[in-house]
Amino acid sequence: MKTKILLKESEMPTHWYNVIADMPNPPTPPLGPDGNPVGPDALAAIFPEALIQQEMSGERWIKIPDEVREVLRLWRPSPLYRAHRLEKMLNTPAKIFYKNESVSPAGSHKPNTAVAQAYYNKQAGIKKLTTETGAGQWGCSIALAGQMFGLEVEVFMVNISYGQKPYRRTMMKTWGAQVHASPTNLTESGRSVLAKDPNSEGSLGIAISEAVEIAASRPDTNYALGSVLNHVLLHQTIIGEEAKKQLAMVGEYPDMIFAPCGGGSNFGGIAFPFFADKAAGKQIELIAVEPTSCPTLTKGTYAYDFGDAIGLTPLMKMYTLGHDFMPPGIHAGGLRYHGDSALISQLYNEGLLGAVAVPQIETFEAGVLFAKSEGIVPAPESTHAIAATIREAKRCAETGEAKTLLFNLSGHGHFDMTSYDRYFAGELEDYDYPEEAIKESLAHLPKVG
Amino acid sequence: MKTKILLKESEMPTHWYNVIADMPNPPTPPLGPDGNPVGPDALAAIFPEALIQQEMSGERWIKIPDEVREVLRLWRPSPLYRAHRLEKMLNTPAKIFYKNESVSPAGSHKPNTAVAQAYYNKQAGIKKLTTETGAGQWGCSIALAGQMFGLEVEVFMVNISYGQKPYRRTMMKTWGAQVHASPTNLTESGRSVLAKDPNSEGSLGIAISEAVEIAASRPDTNYALGSVLNHVLLHQTIIGEEAKKQLAMVGEYPDMIFAPCGGGSNFGGIAFPFFADKAAGKQIELIAVEPTSCPTLTKGTYAYDFGDAIGLTPLMKMYTLGHDFMPPGIHAGGLRYHGDSALISQLYNEGLLGAVAVPQIETFEAGVLFAKSEGIVPAPESTHAIAATIREAKRCAETGEAKTLLFNLSGHGHFDMTSYDRYFAGELEDYDYPEEAIKESLAHLPKVG
Repeated sequence: MKTKILLKESEMPTHWYNVIADMPNPPTPPLGPDGNPVGPDALAAIFPEALIQQEMSGERWIKIPDEVREVLRLWRPSPLYRAHRLEKMLNTPAKIFYKNESVSPAGSHKPNTAVAQAYYNKQAGIKKLTTETGAGQWGCSIALAGQMFGLEVEVFMVNISYGQKPYRRTMMKTWGAQVHASPTNLTESGRSVLAKDPNSEGSLGIAISEAVEIAASRPDTNYALGSVLNHVLLHQTIIGEEAKKQLAMVGEYPDMIFAPCGGGSNFGGIAFPFFADKAAGKQIELIAVEPTSCPTLTKGTYAYDFGDAIGLTPLMKMYTLGHDFMPPGIHAGGLRYHGDSALISQLYNEGLLGAVAVPQIETFEAGVLFAKSEGIVPAPESTHAIAATIREAKRCAETGEAKTLLFNLSGHGHFDMTSYDRYFAGELEDYDYPEEAIKESLAHLPKVG
Repeated sequence: MKTKILLKESEMPTHWYNVIADMPNPPTPPLGPDGNPVGPDALAAIFPEALIQQEMSGERWIKIPDEVREVLRLWRPSPLYRAHRLEKMLNTPAKIFYKNESVSPAGSHKPNTAVAQAYYNKQAGIKKLTTETGAGQWGCSIALAGQMFGLEVEVFMVNISYGQKPYRRTMMKTWGAQVHASPTNLTESGRSVLAKDPNSEGSLGIAISEAVEIAASRPDTNYALGSVLNHVLLHQTIIGEEAKKQLAMVGEYPDMIFAPCGGGSNFGGIAFPFFADKAAGKQIELIAVEPTSCPTLTKGTYAYDFGDAIGLTPLMKMYTLGHDFMPPGIHAGGLRYHGDSALISQLYNEGLLGAVAVPQIETFEAGVLFAKSEGIVPAPESTHAIAATIREAKRCAETGEAKTLLFNLSGHGHFDMTSYDRYFAGELEDYDYPEEAIKESLAHLPKVG
């Protein structure tokens, strides 16, 4: 009974899969402030041409550059696990598999796109990347990737996290990145916030503004984003492609796939390559798992909205809780996003993807059960997928169905132990569905056209 | 150009290698307080018979039980890496390989023996294991292993670490272990310390006393130790056996092997299977790397001494700095041990193993260089092996020698980021060789016979 299903380095996928090629309808375009579609030129100030092309491309397969594969080899192909011990603990006839993306040096799936983005920027002659980070997962990933291609990296880390979560900050420095507590005095955006509140705790919205401002104002500097955009999801499809190969090696195909869903790169990464089969008629359920406290797909509205909290980005048609919705302070920071990838939103709207929301305490219960059976302590984001998988496995135990379930273990929880500590201390809240707050923020949706 | 050399699960070693079979002289026996060799009976109060037999065995190959292999599969075989990017950064003709033991759920090589110990105790009808832990690496490993076999685990964690290093404490709880800040009121040893100093910061010596006291006083409870003893090193030989197979897969054999050496389980684990070849005439250098601040092999005395600070254990013939030597507060906590494995000490004394001492700042420089080239942020213990490997690789760059170097990456540094932070802040000290302190503690060596 195999536990790990491994691919050789030579079996690492050579192309990313572009879901746009198999979507029943063309993707909705991002819109500018004037209500007209945003062209490639508008993005050229902060992204290299290769990434802008990928953002717009309809090609089914896009070649992964050899230089990118060379760096990904440091941890890829990632192992696929059969969760024998979890199955036994649940006494379920279901077969549970998980793709282990926690094996990257940064501890999550994020470096899959960070490495690609760093490469294309280096190719375009860029010297420095700027980005924002909250708890630090994305900042670490881009720090690692920048180091691998000799790019400088400047990270604007939300002030309160900079103080409270020093470990990922130090990790970024270890990989050579410069890390600021945002807001800073280095940008117009930062100075204007500090003028009003010199002790500002900062926010992801402010940090984005700072990073984009610097990238837009310097020809040798670009900006990197860790989720939501089409090219980011594209780079993550290597996860699902590998998983498909690995399942085939043991003669399996999943009935259902679960992945946590914040901006969508993790869910899109594992689900899209299987969507290609679904588009061709195969029976499979692809399920995004989100927190009940930030229920974008399950309770949001499908409308044009800003990608950021302040309203600087182009408008994207997506499921949204309103760009100024402030989610409760759950510990799965990566899932506290008001919107979702436009591609995932469109497919979900067309009934081709599923979604489920899980309350916080259930996710930690699932995380602890997983650690006790499979060993690995999962990230709070990943525990959402585990919780949804356990629900289905328990259902199978009742009905006797021997379904094949696959989930994405997007990261480990080594930097989230304070969250587990609070769970054990009984200090975590479940948070009711924040109906009133969502109603209010949805009232602020921008008018289009 | 392959980066990772992987073994299939079916290629995982089926037997541990017992170095005693190939030693030129029989191992020196542990002695009791009366100066006579300690028999198996004396150990039976705290260890199961199977482990006592392994402690004394002269058999070359000892079968790894299937149940142990079943759990080890959660992360084993561990990958062997060719450090292409580090070689390039050093511009060296040397080939650098490293065995990556950081992939275990607890993040180090320690679970290799924890799993085996938990299994044999479970087989012997034991219900609970006790142990001590400092920073928490060993406590985590035994918590994980106990959970896998349904054993209760009670960990006595040094009080000051309990407060300052809460993350590994929470990890132990996640795996179901009970964790106490030692000294406690639960034992005679603890109470006697608290009576004198109610705010005692604790020490590893006190925590050992508490764990052993409970194990010795309850028939259903045993004690588990994470290094030094023969059976612990035996269980770690799976590392070197795998590495040998993996190197053979790419047609390589190492000229030199480096591993950090505290109690010796990490160094013995990777080096002993290659010692078998050396004993048969093969040319290979096996080098233990220790901190200059705790230079057991390079500056200690080969003599009978206690294994613990207080003087409770049998006397072992080993290189020692004196059992009451208090090493400076370096960040590689796992290497702050006054003694060394008796097996390693004997072979070193006979000139069959090598040793080198490296100062603290050089080890962190090496750790950062490794993270920048290979991605993984290494544990402070592991950076010792990296530093020694880098020294040799640089020497090769000067002489033009294309040596094949192998080191053991014993663990990741995810729970050691404060140490890196202090390194970046310029707050780390190198500590001179503590000559006077060692002279004083060596004056307290117990008299034998």
